[in-house]
Amino acid sequence: MRSPKEYKESLKRMRPNVYKFGELIEDVTTHPATRRTVEGHAKLFWAAMSERWGELFSKESSLIGERVSRYLTLIKTPEDMVANCRMKRAAFNLTGTCTGGRCVGWNAINAMWATAYEMARDGVEWGEEYSRRLMEWLIWAQKEDITLSGALTDPKGDRTKGPGGQKDPLSYLKIVEKDDEGITVRGAKIMIAGVAAANYIFVLPGRGMREGEEDYAVSFVVPRDEEGITCVEARHPSDLREMEEGWDNPVERGGITQSYVLFDDVRIPWERVFMAGEVKYSGRAVMNFIRMYRASIGGCVAGQGDLMAASSVLIARANGLQEKAFRAELAKMVVNNETTFAVGVAASLLGEQHPSGIWLPSTLLSNVNKVHVGTLPYETKRLAQEIAGGIAETGCMPSFKDLQDERYGELLRRYLSGATDPEIRIKLARFIEWLTVGGGIPGTMHGGGSPGGARMMLLRSYPMGEYIERVRELLELDRLPGEDE
Amino acid sequence: MRSPKEYKESLKRMRPNVYKFGELIEDVTTHPATRRTVEGHAKLFWAAMSERWGELFSKESSLIGERVSRYLTLIKTPEDMVANCRMKRAAFNLTGTCTGGRCVGWNAINAMWATAYEMARDGVEWGEEYSRRLMEWLIWAQKEDITLSGALTDPKGDRTKGPGGQKDPLSYLKIVEKDDEGITVRGAKIMIAGVAAANYIFVLPGRGMREGEEDYAVSFVVPRDEEGITCVEARHPSDLREMEEGWDNPVERGGITQSYVLFDDVRIPWERVFMAGEVKYSGRAVMNFIRMYRASIGGCVAGQGDLMAASSVLIARANGLQEKAFRAELAKMVVNNETTFAVGVAASLLGEQHPSGIWLPSTLLSNVNKVHVGTLPYETKRLAQEIAGGIAETGCMPSFKDLQDERYGELLRRYLSGATDPEIRIKLARFIEWLTVGGGIPGTMHGGGSPGGARMMLLRSYPMGEYIERVRELLELDRLPGEDE
Amino acid sequence: MRSPKEYKESLKRMRPNVYKFGELIEDVTTHPATRRTVEGHAKLFWAAMSERWGELFSKESSLIGERVSRYLTLIKTPEDMVANCRMKRAAFNLTGTCTGGRCVGWNAINAMWATAYEMARDGVEWGEEYSRRLMEWLIWAQKEDITLSGALTDPKGDRTKGPGGQKDPLSYLKIVEKDDEGITVRGAKIMIAGVAAANYIFVLPGRGMREGEEDYAVSFVVPRDEEGITCVEARHPSDLREMEEGWDNPVERGGITQSYVLFDDVRIPWERVFMAGEVKYSGRAVMNFIRMYRASIGGCVAGQGDLMAASSVLIARANGLQEKAFRAELAKMVVNNETTFAVGVAASLLGEQHPSGIWLPSTLLSNVNKVHVGTLPYETKRLAQEIAGGIAETGCMPSFKDLQDERYGELLRRYLSGATDPEIRIKLARFIEWLTVGGGIPGTMHGGGSPGGARMMLLRSYPMGEYIERVRELLELDRLPGEDE
Amino acid sequence: MRSPKEYKESLKRMRPNVYKFGELIEDVTTHPATRRTVEGHAKLFWAAMSERWGELFSKESSLIGERVSRYLTLIKTPEDMVANCRMKRAAFNLTGTCTGGRCVGWNAINAMWATAYEMARDGVEWGEEYSRRLMEWLIWAQKEDITLSGALTDPKGDRTKGPGGQKDPLSYLKIVEKDDEGITVRGAKIMIAGVAAANYIFVLPGRGMREGEEDYAVSFVVPRDEEGITCVEARHPSDLREMEEGWDNPVERGGITQSYVLFDDVRIPWERVFMAGEVKYSGRAVMNFIRMYRASIGGCVAGQGDLMAASSVLIARANGLQEKAFRAELAKMVVNNETTFAVGVAASLLGEQHPSGIWLPSTLLSNVNKVHVGTLPYETKRLAQEIAGGIAETGCMPSFKDLQDERYGELLRRYLSGATDPEIRIKLARFIEWLTVGGGIPGTMHGGGSPGGARMMLLRSYPMGEYIERVRELLELDRLPGEDE
Repeated sequence: MRSPKEYKESLKRMRPNVYKFGELIEDVTTHPATRRTVEGHAKLFWAAMSERWGELFSKESSLIGERVSRYLTLIKTPEDMVANCRMKRAAFNLTGTCTGGRCVGWNAINAMWATAYEMARDGVEWGEEYSRRLMEWLIWAQKEDITLSGALTDPKGDRTKGPGGQKDPLSYLKIVEKDDEGITVRGAKIMIAGVAAANYIFVLPGRGMREGEEDYAVSFVVPRDEEGITCVEARHPSDLREMEEGWDNPVERGGITQSYVLFDDVRIPWERVFMAGEVKYSGRAVMNFIRMYRASIGGCVAGQGDLMAASSVLIARANGLQEKAFRAELAKMVVNNETTFAVGVAASLLGEQHPSGIWLPSTLLSNVNKVHVGTLPYETKRLAQEIAGGIAETGCMPSFKDLQDERYGELLRRYLSGATDPEIRIKLARFIEWLTVGGGIPGTMHGGGSPGGARMMLLRSYPMGEYIERVRELLELDRLPGEDE
Repeated sequence: MRSPKEYKESLKRMRPNVYKFGELIEDVTTHPATRRTVEGHAKLFWAAMSERWGELFSKESSLIGERVSRYLTLIKTPEDMVANCRMKRAAFNLTGTCTGGRCVGWNAINAMWATAYEMARDGVEWGEEYSRRLMEWLIWAQKEDITLSGALTDPKGDRTKGPGGQKDPLSYLKIVEKDDEGITVRGAKIMIAGVAAANYIFVLPGRGMREGEEDYAVSFVVPRDEEGITCVEARHPSDLREMEEGWDNPVERGGITQSYVLFDDVRIPWERVFMAGEVKYSGRAVMNFIRMYRASIGGCVAGQGDLMAASSVLIARANGLQEKAFRAELAKMVVNNETTFAVGVAASLLGEQHPSGIWLPSTLLSNVNKVHVGTLPYETKRLAQEIAGGIAETGCMPSFKDLQDERYGELLRRYLSGATDPEIRIKLARFIEWLTVGGGIPGTMHGGGSPGGARMMLLRSYPMGEYIERVRELLELDRLPGEDE
Repeated sequence: MRSPKEYKESLKRMRPNVYKFGELIEDVTTHPATRRTVEGHAKLFWAAMSERWGELFSKESSLIGERVSRYLTLIKTPEDMVANCRMKRAAFNLTGTCTGGRCVGWNAINAMWATAYEMARDGVEWGEEYSRRLMEWLIWAQKEDITLSGALTDPKGDRTKGPGGQKDPLSYLKIVEKDDEGITVRGAKIMIAGVAAANYIFVLPGRGMREGEEDYAVSFVVPRDEEGITCVEARHPSDLREMEEGWDNPVERGGITQSYVLFDDVRIPWERVFMAGEVKYSGRAVMNFIRMYRASIGGCVAGQGDLMAASSVLIARANGLQEKAFRAELAKMVVNNETTFAVGVAASLLGEQHPSGIWLPSTLLSNVNKVHVGTLPYETKRLAQEIAGGIAETGCMPSFKDLQDERYGELLRRYLSGATDPEIRIKLARFIEWLTVGGGIPGTMHGGGSPGGARMMLLRSYPMGEYIERVRELLELDRLPGEDE
Repeated sequence: MRSPKEYKESLKRMRPNVYKFGELIEDVTTHPATRRTVEGHAKLFWAAMSERWGELFSKESSLIGERVSRYLTLIKTPEDMVANCRMKRAAFNLTGTCTGGRCVGWNAINAMWATAYEMARDGVEWGEEYSRRLMEWLIWAQKEDITLSGALTDPKGDRTKGPGGQKDPLSYLKIVEKDDEGITVRGAKIMIAGVAAANYIFVLPGRGMREGEEDYAVSFVVPRDEEGITCVEARHPSDLREMEEGWDNPVERGGITQSYVLFDDVRIPWERVFMAGEVKYSGRAVMNFIRMYRASIGGCVAGQGDLMAASSVLIARANGLQEKAFRAELAKMVVNNETTFAVGVAASLLGEQHPSGIWLPSTLLSNVNKVHVGTLPYETKRLAQEIAGGIAETGCMPSFKDLQDERYGELLRRYLSGATDPEIRIKLARFIEWLTVGGGIPGTMHGGGSPGGARMMLLRSYPMGEYIERVRELLELDRLPGEDE
């Protein structure tokens, strides 16, 4: 496995193709717009080799028989899936934010593994080939210990229509050419987490495609710096503070980036193509992805909530208050954290073995968790702000620069002391600001799909008919409303 | 295993000692105040032998190597504990209400098994003896396939004080004599579910006792009809309807009873005594019980919620409405149901092996679930009432008797037709009334302890200190608020 | 104004036509199924003449210049409407439950006053006549100080269709004959509160009618004991306890009844008919009613919440606990109570003067309040149950009869002592049971229409277009999404 | 009344003493850190003179008989107080954010008017003098049409202690000298809204003081640019975007500033001092302020909610979705907006006339509203993000600069089109980002005090004792728990 240093060196070697604010970032490991997310991802390499976290962050590969990063393994048991939830929580605990450049790619590998298997099993023309390629590539990837982000979200255009119904044919990433050596793709994948910190990108379709939409049913893996790929980083709240000195962006070794990845006729050799036109399987790939992602994302959100609970306790103390005055609020925070985590764990446990060997979590519980993930953290944030007081709510303190000012900086620090050293109190307040309305917010409401879609899916997967039968028995009803006489 | 018929016959053979409304119930299997709960419990005997449910409701005993009722087994693995959650949900689905005469006793066996083991391991004087007795008794119980309720709740008197501080020394069940053959107990256990349907009662202490409170640290098992025991059934909403004919109490084969069990110098031979003065272990027994009970109770509540969701769909149809008009409400109901179930499943999985072989669920997640169980079902009930309309909200329909009245019964039925046969619509509305404000309400807010206590316990078991360390690392703080310089 | 005694005598003089459990109630003032609601209504007559409440419960009539019951006055100012909210709250405080036999009729008078005015103003054939009749009748009613219930809800049949589309033409109350002297109506109004305690019933259409549905557009007032009217009382939770002795139904001078009022070719002389076919105005009448009712019902719900908050404090003390342990819960209860009250007050204030002189509350805020009234009290009930403990949650205590039993009653009382006299503690627990899952529950979720309908109406009355304009200005947008280029 | 232009000229004439990022802002009307808040405040001058808003934003002065800005009038009737709620809502609607440089000062005038009256009435030594000074100053202020911010919040140090118990004597603003001409003050007021846009600052004590804390009981008015005053602007989320070009900060004519106002031995002549040592009245001043502020702040929050609801509708359309898919969400947003507004209106109406002529809103309802203001808007924000999709949740789009980039800007715009012109969709998404996690967030959780304090105050002002009496009567209890026998 790579060391953090080797990981960063691998990034340095890549062709610069990441932009922000109109500027090409020459070295993502040092540029202030990207270095924090790189540091966060590097921390995970450290974790995989550490005594405290090694067991969780690495695992013996069933393919090569060696210990590899867990982020590059096949998820084959409920325990593997629970480890996913745990690792996501731990990764957030350790970095303070999303390390999406690893977990999405990992999910994508597993979702596609199951889908490629199905294509092979069903005798789809290139099915066995897809399976073989994916396995060979994965063996290579495990050995190289690459960092892999995953990309599903297309620009989508008009939400009510699929790719075939759009005015703009590039509203979804498209195959524009196929030949003996590979395919050429054009279009974009947008809002992709962790691209700047990744060596490779694993692409999946963004939705199920229908007949006639073959050019959009495409899955492959590609080096992030491949010819024709341009990555433009999206903004996030208070992102310019990352360019400043001082603690106004309070976390140095963690940070989120989300990229608009533009594909300008990018060539993908067949060896790294896993779907190219099989519309019937495009929806399967997405569904496999969703089941895993929506189950485990609760761990991620719990990991953020842990930091909110702990920093709330700390800032209460810094304000001179006892945390027991906030017992009701803290209990609610803990309930929220543990709920998204626990529902993910239960979804993992109550899943099913896919014939490919992949363990797929419960569709019902995964989608229940997506609803929680789109609601509970908002309450946790509110509670953190309530406990922390006015300085954290909107980060209502003068800038780091002002606090160093010769004329009035000392006075400001004096007035910000609370019941402790002002620097400690300020950093805690900035941290709560960062977590709740600042650069540390991950996009968990819509990442992995929206709560509205999850509500539809959970209603569909809830066995309502069975419970209706129970009512029929209990009430000894021969007929039910709507049944013909 | 017993058949439902054998089970009911065993009850018939017992000494009548159950009272309600000042009347001695001669036969609990036929008296309208108790027969529904007996029928509910009988259904579980059916389930254990059925093809559909047998796997869940029975299990091979690790003690006698034969298939026995799961309600009399040792819970030794996470899977056993998950089966507990599942069985509770299924039992509620099948009976429409609580079958507390089985699940509490089961929990008590397991909690005490672990506690007796600890006493033996620690060299407590009678420890090994307690373990041996419990095992031997359990082997007997499995063979007899008895129904066993469990009793913890003491009258408690003034809540701020323990047994030693009460004005009334019988505020907690008390050993008033010990001799060579056994102990004599006096006092009461109150609000005990399913006593009327039980053959035996397993008694545990109601709280941790302190030195000087030895006489209150007592655990034993006793036939429900033992000399000196009087059971007075508590009321519940609309319980007199159970005495009427017709559908105003809409469920015939399920019902809840909760008993005040009075102990008037009851003799317990040593062979069925598992604790008698070991104050140090009394709290352990309670804690072991709580971990199991609070984890699994979410299954119970989910089972009720399933019936609320399904009957909401049915009554919407009976009213002439499409259930899709209530999609947001139904999705919320499903989320609530699945959350209490899933948190219980996760608590089961994330527990730990007790050295006695018992699997104990996560204290943290069990208590998180207790909070959910004290809140989410209230919302589910509200939603059922919202969907169902005015006739279900307070059961606002004339009585069964009025609907049969020669003068106006036909007219009433006509006006209650909605979009279906009036009888179907009325039964559904009565069912929702019964589930939400009627005889079908289980006491899940306070059963197994109160949400307030659970909030304390979850705060204590949440590893706040660890997350504080994560904050310290992320903010690179040497000192934290409150730490000495 | 009448004294409580005179009021009760007026009820005794009426023809018995109220049934429950297949039995004709000869005297509603003494029969246990109805006497509590009569006592509750009688209390309001006392209040009108008391020093403490007289100002609120009576008012100088603008028609006859004398002080009359406020329940028979015209609501002409915001202050009158606020007094409505206050009086509803006070009435609930004083009687422990709904006194729907007064407030609904009062609303109906005012809704119809405005509607009759509009018919007159618009030159509808009988419009002026309707107005004159209503005024003359009201003068008479004020002088007689009658008790007037109000009836809107029709059986409705299939919810998706209006009266014209039903299989059963009597799904809505129908005019089956018109002649020189009056009209004849057939059908029913159902779930009508307080009928047993009322002298008269004021009938309004249950929804807006369309052309072709003229026979259903009908409003009139009729003596409750008119020839052809049969009232069958609906059940409510634990209603049989009202037939028992003792405190299991803990309130003696208050109780709710809801009646199915059957009209079997009832003759109404023209002098008491206020609408008979004017479909265009039927919806107006309903809307006028809704605006008033949904505004003021928050007072009612607050009045119940006050009793829940106060009895929670008392039972906490009875349990030996300090109420400050429940500060968070009590604060939430107060917030809920005051919110439904305050939104009603604001709706009253922000209404508008109808040209008839009637003051109509804000449609927007009335409907907002209906949503609150269908949600917040459920949380308040949950909190009352949480504070009160297991004995109140499902009323889990033996019956009054058992507590008097010679064999074991004394023991039961001893074990129910808590930190006070057991009788006090038991009564408080029964009261919380009664308020939350017992006979004291008013039907506020669906009374005055359902939350779902209110959500539709509030969206329609919210000036979204205006706020869209504000967004346009702030963002300096020339075009908005959906506007043609 | 001043025109916007005159207002801005008055600011230009002031001594520069506002800093941000270590830089002295020479002209607050043009510097990007302050010009938006100035523009927002200027809009209110426009409103006062406009046909559409003039009635609301101005009023005839009871002191000088001329029409003046409503922000400088005495609040003497419930209608005046309701106008406060309305104006706050309209101001937020018009500017997109807080215009705290007017409303806090206005509240302070009125709170102090009542307090000064009390001091005069009670014969406090300088009481009549304080009243006279305040009246004369207010007449002058009305004529000049000044902009007046208000300052209460002291640094506070250790929250558990008052000013007398702090390690640092300047934890609260302090009188350090008194002589014939006036007083000298030292210390700070922090997190003061709108200072940059104000001509004057009205200072009130930040809490009730006790004997021995006379030097901290101080109220006065002072020019914002007085000798010795230094204002350092606090940061807020994404504030550096205000320095950029383009739409990433999407609102040009509105913005919030909150200042740390440092008083370095500032001289205040007696003519502008309204309290100087009268500890007994310091708490009164704060309470008078709180009643007004917490009532009306709901209008402010509703005004923000209106913009969130409207922009949610617009972005749903821009995404190609129909808003009816979000009916449940939109209804909840409207309920939230109208609730905080309505509770404020009701608090206004149910207040009381202070003998000074000032109308004071209900303490109970004001504090209920503070709780809502600290919770409901968080849900509204969540809902806006849910409807808007991933691009708004964290503002996940490339920067304005990137969108103009020659190499890839056109592609980005193409992919951001949705179902409309990309610029419109982007601006709407940026607006929702700005409102929910960006520069547009006002500090309503803690502004005017924290929800925790409000919960204490509402419990204290709720007439629990009266409702306990009602329970006593209903249950016919002679004694209550805790009462002696």
